[in-house]
Amino acid sequence: MKHYLGASNPMRAQFKPLQAYQAQHFSWAFEAGVATLTLNRPERKNPLTFESYAELRDLFNALRYATDVKAVVITGAGGNFCSGGDVHDIIGPLTRMSMPELIEFTRMTGDLVKTMRQCPQPLIGAIDGICAGAGAMMALACDLRLGSPRAKTAFLFTRVGLAGADMGACSLLPRLIGQGRASELLFTGRAMVADEGLAWGFFNSLHPAEALLAQAQQLARSLADGPTFAHGMTKTMLHQEWAMTLEQAIEAEAQAQAICMQTQDFRRAYEAFAAKQQPQFQGD
Amino acid sequence: MKHYLGASNPMRAQFKPLQAYQAQHFSWAFEAGVATLTLNRPERKNPLTFESYAELRDLFNALRYATDVKAVVITGAGGNFCSGGDVHDIIGPLTRMSMPELIEFTRMTGDLVKTMRQCPQPLIGAIDGICAGAGAMMALACDLRLGSPRAKTAFLFTRVGLAGADMGACSLLPRLIGQGRASELLFTGRAMVADEGLAWGFFNSLHPAEALLAQAQQLARSLADGPTFAHGMTKTMLHQEWAMTLEQAIEAEAQAQAICMQTQDFRRAYEAFAAKQQPQFQGD
Amino acid sequence: MKHYLGASNPMRAQFKPLQAYQAQHFSWAFEAGVATLTLNRPERKNPLTFESYAELRDLFNALRYATDVKAVVITGAGGNFCSGGDVHDIIGPLTRMSMPELIEFTRMTGDLVKTMRQCPQPLIGAIDGICAGAGAMMALACDLRLGSPRAKTAFLFTRVGLAGADMGACSLLPRLIGQGRASELLFTGRAMVADEGLAWGFFNSLHPAEALLAQAQQLARSLADGPTFAHGMTKTMLHQEWAMTLEQAIEAEAQAQAICMQTQDFRRAYEAFAAKQQPQFQGD
Repeated sequence: MKHYLGASNPMRAQFKPLQAYQAQHFSWAFEAGVATLTLNRPERKNPLTFESYAELRDLFNALRYATDVKAVVITGAGGNFCSGGDVHDIIGPLTRMSMPELIEFTRMTGDLVKTMRQCPQPLIGAIDGICAGAGAMMALACDLRLGSPRAKTAFLFTRVGLAGADMGACSLLPRLIGQGRASELLFTGRAMVADEGLAWGFFNSLHPAEALLAQAQQLARSLADGPTFAHGMTKTMLHQEWAMTLEQAIEAEAQAQAICMQTQDFRRAYEAFAAKQQPQFQGD
Repeated sequence: MKHYLGASNPMRAQFKPLQAYQAQHFSWAFEAGVATLTLNRPERKNPLTFESYAELRDLFNALRYATDVKAVVITGAGGNFCSGGDVHDIIGPLTRMSMPELIEFTRMTGDLVKTMRQCPQPLIGAIDGICAGAGAMMALACDLRLGSPRAKTAFLFTRVGLAGADMGACSLLPRLIGQGRASELLFTGRAMVADEGLAWGFFNSLHPAEALLAQAQQLARSLADGPTFAHGMTKTMLHQEWAMTLEQAIEAEAQAQAICMQTQDFRRAYEAFAAKQQPQFQGD
Repeated sequence: MKHYLGASNPMRAQFKPLQAYQAQHFSWAFEAGVATLTLNRPERKNPLTFESYAELRDLFNALRYATDVKAVVITGAGGNFCSGGDVHDIIGPLTRMSMPELIEFTRMTGDLVKTMRQCPQPLIGAIDGICAGAGAMMALACDLRLGSPRAKTAFLFTRVGLAGADMGACSLLPRLIGQGRASELLFTGRAMVADEGLAWGFFNSLHPAEALLAQAQQLARSLADGPTFAHGMTKTMLHQEWAMTLEQAIEAEAQAQAICMQTQDFRRAYEAFAAKQQPQFQGD
């Protein structure tokens, strides 16, 4: 039965390792299970374009099947995270689109958040400088967020005449920082400074800009060295239980955890404990 | 097609401008899109009565169709916000009512919260002094809350032998300040002081009592000058997504935002940006 | 009709007073409506065993019908709350179980949280020292949590190769401290120190270790002396509205509160107010 976990597993015809992925619209590096995705048009603070949205969506979708990648750090080049949808490349064209074209766009951007939430890998945002619009939504769609003291996060859709309802903001943001603070940020578009982000639970921790990426990668490393099958289940259940009753959530977790109790990693942890050693998790 | 937005729009037979509304049980002022509603029985800390509950409910319901009002500030006269349901005028009679009468009352008070959440205008509470019982619920039903350092907010239903479950408190309060803190306030009825309210996300900001109303009106002004159609969609979606899965919320926002992308305000913002000017939003 | 509230009430054949309950796997004390449940294997930091899980589940289930108990304090002996499932007594056997046996275990532990949420009594955790794994989940399943400065709360399922999805953690923890902080604690298993727990809303307050239990009992006393029928409704509605829309929650509360308005405690509160006295609540 064990061979189903190997390359001959017929359910893995779709499996493609992504460690050597050749990114077109951002950069992608890989080291021993940890990938680092860098938005890299620093001269314009790393805006998104139609093409980069689509490639990001497809990459996170592919990560569902790429078991070689165990954790992903998402960051931006040149001291900023992401300035959001490019005004010239995106906003201009949108003002001339038909409704079917518009909804194709808004569904594509929403699909980026969906695929970020649906892949099993923990996603860690390393957020320095400007983090705005769709960039703020990418940060929000990460599992964990590390920031620098100069991070400025703004859901500035309102500044271009749009609703704060973009890519799931009205559902995600209140769950992180509370309904009242989320309402303020979404109605006014004002920037949340780093200290607010930490105090409100948007950031898990702040680090000097020069240490930020290394800290995020170290956290990703520790998660990649952990029980990654179980981590994937943690992520799935945090997502899955979003709108369940507490009874439904408890039953769902009883099933999910029973599955994890039949992994080798659970046995490894027990045997290591009995032998007074550190467990060596392998993700199966 | 454009004329449907004007006075001849047949869907607007029910539309009544509310800028000159003559309030009976509170005061109502209006200036260029921003209304200020003041609970004004200061000698008793602005309690609610059967009549004022009903008028408030009807006013907020009418605001759904009153496109002349773009934002509303809600405050209290004489250094207090609202002391809640009047003991003599409300609590006494309730102890003598039949069940159909009681539920008519609790549904009326609940309808006040519903109509506050269903109107498209951002509601900004300016909260000084006592903010208790149903008054605390009116504050909670606002979109944004500004407080003074002496604001005391108490969900004191338990003090009169009732449940903390009143007007949606058990659903709204945990979303603002967390389930644990909400449980304490609802079980004990103790007052949340202003600093707690700020630290916990109940208040968006604190201001000296003498500057509070002006600050709230200035915030309302800036929202009224913004893309008010989009603001209405932001409010609708924050409410609408309350119990959706994240996938459902993302699809709902894809539709909502595509609608906003066909507004004139979106085009205005883009054209202003291209011309390096500030956009002049008009709410259509 | 009044006699239905007494011993002859035919719906109370199942009613058993629990003030004199003889606990087998923990200790149980009772004083005038307030019970104190102490996990008491201090030499091993009060771990849980198959037997103690089952007894706790059955006790909290029985509390649904035990109207002599008005509030419960849950604590641990010897300076720690609870170290979670015992490694030797529980984790070892789990590594050798079949799937039907595993899910019988995870459903039993989930049922403990369900029964803690379903009994009408407010549950107050008094949490000193180690509060880990299933112990952290018992703390989370309380209504209110008082801690000491040395309390360390860790959802360390990941450390034994399991998911953070255990006993409802992925649903409960985000509602108390926010989705971002909950994700960190569940993915990493790191300990939340007492100050974090207070700042994030996990703890309602912190007290010196030597005063902690007395403070928790005093809070329980004040709740037991309050309108306990209404308290039970508050708890029911906080639980019941977990995944309702806001409209559904408001209607549910209109019904719940109308019921409470026909209690004697509501009348007592009004009459005491009219007579300028303190109300003496009796829970009916």
